[in-house]
Amino acid sequence: MAAGLQVFGQPASTDVARVLTCLFEKNLEFELVRIDTFKREHKLPEFIKLRDPTGQVTFKHGDKTLVDSRAICRYLCTQFPEDGNRGIYGTGSLERASIEQWLQAEAHSFDAPSSELVFHLAFAPLLSMNPDEAHIAENERKLQQMLGVYDEILAKNQYLAGDEFTLADLSHLPSSHYIAATPRGRKLFTSKRHVARWYDAISSRPSWQQVVKMQSEHPGTFE
Amino acid sequence: MAAGLQVFGQPASTDVARVLTCLFEKNLEFELVRIDTFKREHKLPEFIKLRDPTGQVTFKHGDKTLVDSRAICRYLCTQFPEDGNRGIYGTGSLERASIEQWLQAEAHSFDAPSSELVFHLAFAPLLSMNPDEAHIAENERKLQQMLGVYDEILAKNQYLAGDEFTLADLSHLPSSHYIAATPRGRKLFTSKRHVARWYDAISSRPSWQQVVKMQSEHPGTFE
Repeated sequence: MAAGLQVFGQPASTDVARVLTCLFEKNLEFELVRIDTFKREHKLPEFIKLRDPTGQVTFKHGDKTLVDSRAICRYLCTQFPEDGNRGIYGTGSLERASIEQWLQAEAHSFDAPSSELVFHLAFAPLLSMNPDEAHIAENERKLQQMLGVYDEILAKNQYLAGDEFTLADLSHLPSSHYIAATPRGRKLFTSKRHVARWYDAISSRPSWQQVVKMQSEHPGTFE
Repeated sequence: MAAGLQVFGQPASTDVARVLTCLFEKNLEFELVRIDTFKREHKLPEFIKLRDPTGQVTFKHGDKTLVDSRAICRYLCTQFPEDGNRGIYGTGSLERASIEQWLQAEAHSFDAPSSELVFHLAFAPLLSMNPDEAHIAENERKLQQMLGVYDEILAKNQYLAGDEFTLADLSHLPSSHYIAATPRGRKLFTSKRHVARWYDAISSRPSWQQVVKMQSEHPGTFE
């Protein structure tokens, strides 16, 4: 039993969601520690902060503390290679190199425009903010361009790093989910045939469905 | 600002719910720390444990740690007399003595049969347990007898310890809520005119409604 795995944060955060999905894929036992602050007069906790998709994640395993969600996923996979989904971080060095390449692409190219779209398409309307059309269009264009490359790859492979679901795919889920939940964002994922097939496959994994369920259990309100 | 008030536990627990209601009545700022354990193969946390209405509560304020829900409520009221609902623990010694008498009655006479009914009427069916009819009837009889006395008092007063809502009333909410949520249990509270009026009044308080909302946000499943 992998004793002492603890995640601190709210499932609504994309970083927390990434780590939770990995834990479920690896079928590891863990504790999720959520701290809600209740302010005077505001009986509901500070949901804007709680639901902030850029909310932090902290992970502890014994004396080890990690705060980067992708580093936590890598750690879980290398620390517990035999648990749950064994192939999720590759079984050979070539396979791992390919997964790493996509993990880096996600972190360095996909994450920035997708985080902007999560905020501006999914969260800003809930905060009654006026949409910043130029900013949205600019990030849509960036994401569309990336997904164009993805579509070519996914015409050949079932998943990004080959024919198996890996961390490379998993890492895209949290932001993509928020974007695809909006009518405008959804088109980014449905307009390209292979991307659409891929997104359907990765977003219907039980590990991810479990995280979505946890996010909806703590629905919150925006004030 | 009342810095450093922390509650550890799940809102579904009657003891946690009692403390949360008091914190909302006193309009105090606090943190709620929930720890969910996710076991292997069981992706959902151990909700049977989590939703156990007898689940523990732990309260911390600086160096002070308390674990008895009624003691925590008394502590909050004496420590923060000027915050939120000021009359909830009485403003004079006579009033406080009356509240104390009812708090003791709730803890020593109401709590045992009502906890049994919470478990056997509200929770056992969810766990697919066969109802223990003799045991249910016995506890119903005990609670009915107590509520008969309450009805006489409530014919004269709006609330148990006088004409204001106090800790005496608040302390009855968490168990009563689970019992009154079942068709059979509901009759215990609706069949007596003054008890019915009283229960309507106390259960519609915003502080309690907030707790009910928090309980439903973490619905859980029984496996």
